[in-house]
Amino acid sequence: MTEEIGVGMVGHAFMGAVHSHAWRSVHRFFDVPLTPRLAVLGGRDPVRTKDAATKYGWAAVETDWRALVARDDVGLVDICTPGDTHAEIALAALAAGKHVLCEKPLANTVAEAEAMAAAAEEAAGRGVRSMVAFNYRRVPAIALARKLVEEGRIGEVRHVRAVYLQDWLSDPSSPMTWRMRKEKAGSGALGDLGAHIVDAAQFVTGDLITGVSATTETFVRSRPDGDGFADVTVDDAAVFLARFSSGALGTFEATRYALGRKNSMRLEVNGTRGSLAFDFESMNELSVFSADDGSAAGFRRILVTEADHPYVGAWWPPGHLLGYEHTFTHEAADFLTAIGGGVDPAPSFTDGLRVQRVLAAVEESAGQQSTWTMIGDPR
Amino acid sequence: MTEEIGVGMVGHAFMGAVHSHAWRSVHRFFDVPLTPRLAVLGGRDPVRTKDAATKYGWAAVETDWRALVARDDVGLVDICTPGDTHAEIALAALAAGKHVLCEKPLANTVAEAEAMAAAAEEAAGRGVRSMVAFNYRRVPAIALARKLVEEGRIGEVRHVRAVYLQDWLSDPSSPMTWRMRKEKAGSGALGDLGAHIVDAAQFVTGDLITGVSATTETFVRSRPDGDGFADVTVDDAAVFLARFSSGALGTFEATRYALGRKNSMRLEVNGTRGSLAFDFESMNELSVFSADDGSAAGFRRILVTEADHPYVGAWWPPGHLLGYEHTFTHEAADFLTAIGGGVDPAPSFTDGLRVQRVLAAVEESAGQQSTWTMIGDPR
Amino acid sequence: MTEEIGVGMVGHAFMGAVHSHAWRSVHRFFDVPLTPRLAVLGGRDPVRTKDAATKYGWAAVETDWRALVARDDVGLVDICTPGDTHAEIALAALAAGKHVLCEKPLANTVAEAEAMAAAAEEAAGRGVRSMVAFNYRRVPAIALARKLVEEGRIGEVRHVRAVYLQDWLSDPSSPMTWRMRKEKAGSGALGDLGAHIVDAAQFVTGDLITGVSATTETFVRSRPDGDGFADVTVDDAAVFLARFSSGALGTFEATRYALGRKNSMRLEVNGTRGSLAFDFESMNELSVFSADDGSAAGFRRILVTEADHPYVGAWWPPGHLLGYEHTFTHEAADFLTAIGGGVDPAPSFTDGLRVQRVLAAVEESAGQQSTWTMIGDPR
Amino acid sequence: MTEEIGVGMVGHAFMGAVHSHAWRSVHRFFDVPLTPRLAVLGGRDPVRTKDAATKYGWAAVETDWRALVARDDVGLVDICTPGDTHAEIALAALAAGKHVLCEKPLANTVAEAEAMAAAAEEAAGRGVRSMVAFNYRRVPAIALARKLVEEGRIGEVRHVRAVYLQDWLSDPSSPMTWRMRKEKAGSGALGDLGAHIVDAAQFVTGDLITGVSATTETFVRSRPDGDGFADVTVDDAAVFLARFSSGALGTFEATRYALGRKNSMRLEVNGTRGSLAFDFESMNELSVFSADDGSAAGFRRILVTEADHPYVGAWWPPGHLLGYEHTFTHEAADFLTAIGGGVDPAPSFTDGLRVQRVLAAVEESAGQQSTWTMIGDPR
Repeated sequence: MTEEIGVGMVGHAFMGAVHSHAWRSVHRFFDVPLTPRLAVLGGRDPVRTKDAATKYGWAAVETDWRALVARDDVGLVDICTPGDTHAEIALAALAAGKHVLCEKPLANTVAEAEAMAAAAEEAAGRGVRSMVAFNYRRVPAIALARKLVEEGRIGEVRHVRAVYLQDWLSDPSSPMTWRMRKEKAGSGALGDLGAHIVDAAQFVTGDLITGVSATTETFVRSRPDGDGFADVTVDDAAVFLARFSSGALGTFEATRYALGRKNSMRLEVNGTRGSLAFDFESMNELSVFSADDGSAAGFRRILVTEADHPYVGAWWPPGHLLGYEHTFTHEAADFLTAIGGGVDPAPSFTDGLRVQRVLAAVEESAGQQSTWTMIGDPR
Repeated sequence: MTEEIGVGMVGHAFMGAVHSHAWRSVHRFFDVPLTPRLAVLGGRDPVRTKDAATKYGWAAVETDWRALVARDDVGLVDICTPGDTHAEIALAALAAGKHVLCEKPLANTVAEAEAMAAAAEEAAGRGVRSMVAFNYRRVPAIALARKLVEEGRIGEVRHVRAVYLQDWLSDPSSPMTWRMRKEKAGSGALGDLGAHIVDAAQFVTGDLITGVSATTETFVRSRPDGDGFADVTVDDAAVFLARFSSGALGTFEATRYALGRKNSMRLEVNGTRGSLAFDFESMNELSVFSADDGSAAGFRRILVTEADHPYVGAWWPPGHLLGYEHTFTHEAADFLTAIGGGVDPAPSFTDGLRVQRVLAAVEESAGQQSTWTMIGDPR
Repeated sequence: MTEEIGVGMVGHAFMGAVHSHAWRSVHRFFDVPLTPRLAVLGGRDPVRTKDAATKYGWAAVETDWRALVARDDVGLVDICTPGDTHAEIALAALAAGKHVLCEKPLANTVAEAEAMAAAAEEAAGRGVRSMVAFNYRRVPAIALARKLVEEGRIGEVRHVRAVYLQDWLSDPSSPMTWRMRKEKAGSGALGDLGAHIVDAAQFVTGDLITGVSATTETFVRSRPDGDGFADVTVDDAAVFLARFSSGALGTFEATRYALGRKNSMRLEVNGTRGSLAFDFESMNELSVFSADDGSAAGFRRILVTEADHPYVGAWWPPGHLLGYEHTFTHEAADFLTAIGGGVDPAPSFTDGLRVQRVLAAVEESAGQQSTWTMIGDPR
Repeated sequence: MTEEIGVGMVGHAFMGAVHSHAWRSVHRFFDVPLTPRLAVLGGRDPVRTKDAATKYGWAAVETDWRALVARDDVGLVDICTPGDTHAEIALAALAAGKHVLCEKPLANTVAEAEAMAAAAEEAAGRGVRSMVAFNYRRVPAIALARKLVEEGRIGEVRHVRAVYLQDWLSDPSSPMTWRMRKEKAGSGALGDLGAHIVDAAQFVTGDLITGVSATTETFVRSRPDGDGFADVTVDDAAVFLARFSSGALGTFEATRYALGRKNSMRLEVNGTRGSLAFDFESMNELSVFSADDGSAAGFRRILVTEADHPYVGAWWPPGHLLGYEHTFTHEAADFLTAIGGGVDPAPSFTDGLRVQRVLAAVEESAGQQSTWTMIGDPR
């Protein structure tokens, strides 16, 4: 058993549950230089937080995130709260010398994200590491896609086609949640789903989006909330065109109204020598076309479960599928490895900021009759 | 055997070959009120036209389309030429009282298309029929999709996702053809492929696009042409966002650079009660999701080969697939049936004009920084 | 236009319709050395035969197949009748010096098939050609599969997995037809569907089955017939294990009770270097796995619509699908080419006999508690 | 936190790793009446066992399974060893009053399995529970399939088609392992893979196999072992026909030589009203056909990730896939629930015996020229 690192996690809803599993499991499968200890769980409601801590295996609880950040037994702060509190917690934790893993989207505004990226860079100089939790980079099939692009297997990228389709708001009687309130969530499908496909597209292509043209829509503007109704103040769907710095064309769509599509995060990339296609609903598969295959060419359905595929060696024999939460275990492994190795992990807060800038440009374009809008400083 | 109608067809390239097959075959499978006689084939080069006539089974040839239109033995003119000559031939034929089937896109400009639509309406008053050859409406799966939408099976439409992906220009050394010259083709992927998905989306939803935001690109600006090179003067790819009059959001993409996608005309529609998905590379299948299916819900892969599916009763037993050219045979059957029945067939020249207006708005928006552009008179 | 050959076709039901289409179309797409003329259609009922001749384009009719065979304007006899008359007609036609295309299965008994194969060999010595209509060999994807096996792309074959699943008898109230009467059809799913997969498996592997172990079943033993009921005297389903001379293991299943499978003729072959998979319900696709693809290996979904794929060059651009009847047009092209070239076409009557012997062994094994049964003389 | 139960697990290879994960995780997701404590890990090699205990989180180790069984802190014995030791360990554990979870196949011989089933029945009278680890029953899609059959959704079963295809022995240079030695593994692909599909087919249909006709093969009879070679003494592949007591026909195939198929455990069931299809390589999906869907019928691809699907409510939102190891967590949850509730869990040792008898009949038939062989006492 390696040296331990105490984890303090803020938030215990969906993300808290899956992050807890990752911290409990990562060292059982990966040779990580630090063994996570589930030290403290943070939450506002003392009873619910205590119950969650028992269920998920956390040793202690705090109802004030500042107290959690300040604890000596916490070396790593994991932020699983809605976007409106990311910046505050992350800045405090970095200042306190704690490594920070922050859920996506990095923040609710570009200004917050800029402050966070700056703080992360400064902290890195002190050996304090930070990472934004774009877990889809840790889907083995997406990591393999990146590897193939990097190796030049598809040539120069010409087209990117990315959609993230869910359907849980198709029913107008589905109740209000924090995800539909702008002050909590920042945006709707755009920040929740669009952030994932923007990051995945930039990650897989190794390129950045330079400009967008966009439209957004709120199909159902009022939803049941307790005994009454509440206004939906975020987008239900966002669609946009994009350019990458290479000149590649992109189309993007994020929606919670695509009936029958449960979690269809699809990414297609066409290059001059080959193409890639992925759908999260078949997350263990990557389809790859290679022009080199000649008259026997066709999209290869690669079952990304071989020992030499990214992350897979830690798990089961070929053909034994991985699931959603594995991506978080991979994320934890990569973060612990970076901390132990004294290097900066990716995606960095700056990567998170890059996504934030694209999201902001989407909203700006949508507010200006879809006029083409350049991304501010897409370094 | 029913009464005959003499067909005069102008053009004998790809479309000429497949239209010839339709005229030869339609009455062998469908009970049509008129039996087509392959009377005259029109083409500029006398030798090549004669050879084509022999191969495809035409009784005579004309090297001047005006002579063809004027012949007494021609009751129906079938226009299979590049878009730059559609208007002229169609107007002459309608004026001469000949029924007209015109390949898509209807014309190279909105002005031409308007003139054609007006002439078609006038001719209809004289009992002269016209139709634009959007053959994809005659794919049984797409006709079934339209039927399901019409019956309310998917509720109100919220999202349309349409792409038409080919890859034959991925290779920069592919030679120049008339399809890459603006003066012949009007536009590139937009008019060739985009026209199909705009028409199919409007047909299946029963709705019209009211505005678009667009970008186009020419990836390879010069191509081998004989001993030298020629400039490509059309788009290689076009992407655009769209709104339908119902408020539904659409995304569209037409490209000839999606390596590995040979003829992937895909259409997805999400409604409040169900969803549809189609890919021309699996043209005998329609995927349908119904929220009514409860916990056993999932996209149904309908093999559209049952006798009660559109057009299928004329062909083979269930599971025996149809191919590309069948859509033209269906088109011929529908046109002959309309002529014999004295009714106006669809898609009309006005339907063709509606598509033309969308294509024009796409080009306009692309030229104005993707600013949202309304469709002129989308009746 | 090349020299003509008069075709006399006996039978005008399902197979008659599709063969007629092939004879009408083959020279429009393929450069064949002989142009078929639809000379005479044979059928027992004069009115129905005349109607069919008009619909399908035959110049004359005969109600006695002997008269048809004897006609001077008939150079090729196409046998589309139930299996009980194949031998008699074929033997007479070959004796009369007419080339013979015979529908599958070649005959209803091994004895008949042996006589036919012997007569065909004798006739070949006189320049008279014969072919059995295993049209699935002419599916481009299956022809490509054969080519890949021949080139050694999948190494030595170890497993064959073949099923032919239909569902039109699932409903016990479906009426009696000649296909369920032993005296007409010889056998049920076995001869109708099983014959196809036995031939396809032997064709693709280039190998012969040496022995089988089998079971058959008649699920519904009596079916509506006119005002009453009639006994079903053939199998509804047949399943069998098989060995190929190479040592490869095979499993086969033919049934008309696989609800939801409309025409699912599937063939999978696993070799020491690669694998193949095909399903007729997606007949334009072949899936190929190659161990050489290393960590990017996966089944390639080849869309078999490229100009360099078998038969495809005669048709449309890539991605424009072919359908069921194309296989018959290919068959006609191959037969005419063989006749014109003075060579024996495949599959020969001997190939048909080989299939017949496997079918007979299946019935024998099924009657003897599934005991392993060797194929008589599998040359 | 509920009352604890000490688990003693024997074996720490592949199955040990995945069972450890289940015991560590089950109470984090399921409300189980007993919380497992990872008390003791048993293994023969003290160093390797200690390392495994550290990695997987076990509190203590024993190198003698008898000592493990005897410990007071062990209330449940989990047997993850090769099949040759199952009977001995299980009988001792049951005699000692310990609940027993035993990996599949239950034993290497019918005699052993009979003794185990008898002991399990006797122990059940004392409140001691036992279960055989056919984890595929706990794939949500397979559990859903069982539910649909039970509800009568597919009517009476007519066909079962089951294959379990892997390819890790395709390469003749793959080294010898215990799985290829008869004295350790009992049989090869038959017991390892065939056992799963026999159990799954019997579970999903709710029916038992009454007889089989079979053939087996060892393609590669000698394999590298250390510096030399060792004889493979088990089957590489087994194929068999089967009858269920309902009269349904089955075909089965288990092989480790299906190149490109990594873990393709496929099950298809056709009934009089509907059909089911499953492939473990897409384990989160179940395809269901219902004749009631009329002209919009097609196989529904159900993504089995809804809260009302079996086991899924404990996990993530719709569309967030589960993986291989989840089936073991479900198994642990069901076993703990049965122990806590004082009821006998399924699959029982008797269910394991039923599978064993089928496997024995397969070997017997294969040794007797595939003659139909009845299953001994298929109660």
